[in-house]
Amino acid sequence: MPETGTQQATTPPAAYTPTDRTVPSRSRERAAYDHETVHAILDEGYVCHLGFVRDGAPVVLPTLYARVGDRLYVHGSTGSRPLRMTGKAEPGLPVCLTVTHVDGVVLARSAFHHSMNYRSVVVHGLAHQVTDPEEKRQALDALVDQVVAGRSADSRPADAKELAATAVIRLDLDEVSAKARTGGPNDEPEDMTLPHWAGVLPLRKGYEAAVPAADLAPGVELPGYLTQP
Amino acid sequence: MPETGTQQATTPPAAYTPTDRTVPSRSRERAAYDHETVHAILDEGYVCHLGFVRDGAPVVLPTLYARVGDRLYVHGSTGSRPLRMTGKAEPGLPVCLTVTHVDGVVLARSAFHHSMNYRSVVVHGLAHQVTDPEEKRQALDALVDQVVAGRSADSRPADAKELAATAVIRLDLDEVSAKARTGGPNDEPEDMTLPHWAGVLPLRKGYEAAVPAADLAPGVELPGYLTQP
Repeated sequence: MPETGTQQATTPPAAYTPTDRTVPSRSRERAAYDHETVHAILDEGYVCHLGFVRDGAPVVLPTLYARVGDRLYVHGSTGSRPLRMTGKAEPGLPVCLTVTHVDGVVLARSAFHHSMNYRSVVVHGLAHQVTDPEEKRQALDALVDQVVAGRSADSRPADAKELAATAVIRLDLDEVSAKARTGGPNDEPEDMTLPHWAGVLPLRKGYEAAVPAADLAPGVELPGYLTQP
Repeated sequence: MPETGTQQATTPPAAYTPTDRTVPSRSRERAAYDHETVHAILDEGYVCHLGFVRDGAPVVLPTLYARVGDRLYVHGSTGSRPLRMTGKAEPGLPVCLTVTHVDGVVLARSAFHHSMNYRSVVVHGLAHQVTDPEEKRQALDALVDQVVAGRSADSRPADAKELAATAVIRLDLDEVSAKARTGGPNDEPEDMTLPHWAGVLPLRKGYEAAVPAADLAPGVELPGYLTQP
């Protein structure tokens, strides 16, 4: 397909614009800004670490997230701290949302070159409370589907009381970067003959067998989307 | 052993004192402050998310950590941002260091009650640069051993040049809390007969088979501490 090839050669991939905050101070060769790389890392996970500032000090909390196009959503009780703070903040609450996949432990001959294989995305921006009911409902579906694709259609949707008790905040993907390390150890040439084993321990991924709830109603079978991960 | 029972009843376990920052605004029953719970969660991991404030906005970065008694250590290039900032900050850089283990995905009959089984530790405090050479060397050993126990003794120690290029920061365990969720879904009584499967998807843990470096010297065997994880 030469025409497609020509198009790809002349059209650079869509990418986020690097900023002072998204260009790392070291290992710049590990950074990426193209949509494809950033979205792939975000779509593989569902737990992020959300940072915000409270009384001048940082707070970092683990929480679920979902991506819908160029928007990230986080939800929580209307009583939880970052969600309350977002509701009050004008023009939005400054946050940093980070997603990290640890892929392997890198063992080098030298202690200094021990490392980690990982892929991470760091998003900076202002979080806004979602007030539109339809956007809120879609975000809540996305938060369930981010964890298990197709699950929101196979569970009872939130009722009015549950919707009122849940706050959703949005963070647009704009100032964002990906960073990754892959491959084996990078030892010094003079260390290559040392007797220490060197290589990578890859982390196990995925799930063990699903454990049914003790009070699962008789006859409820494990759905197909859980047997084919 | 009635005497032991009596002792346990009168001697409360050592615990960190809860503060305004370490008492969660919701799900307080999930919080714990005893040393045993906090240390066990920290000791099981080696990747944290470190938060700090730069120009008034939060920054959250994944990095390795190690625990030595009541101290946590983080290291990095002397050129990296949080380490440079710590070196300049008096009386220390305000940070929040969070460690999270995701144990399982909780699928409920209702979308609202979907949840995550996890154990996390959140540490607030001031980070200080480690300047004592002996403490720095011990911290670097601990950082390697936190990932693979015993590994620091089976690798070439850092030389003077590598030590000079590496900065280590310390964060004392003082203002710290653990939080955990375990068990199955907590559905509403009226949802129990819905046809949706409910239960837990436990995450796979541990490592796949070790992958030797492509240029591993002949005759270097996989050490015992990597074959018995």
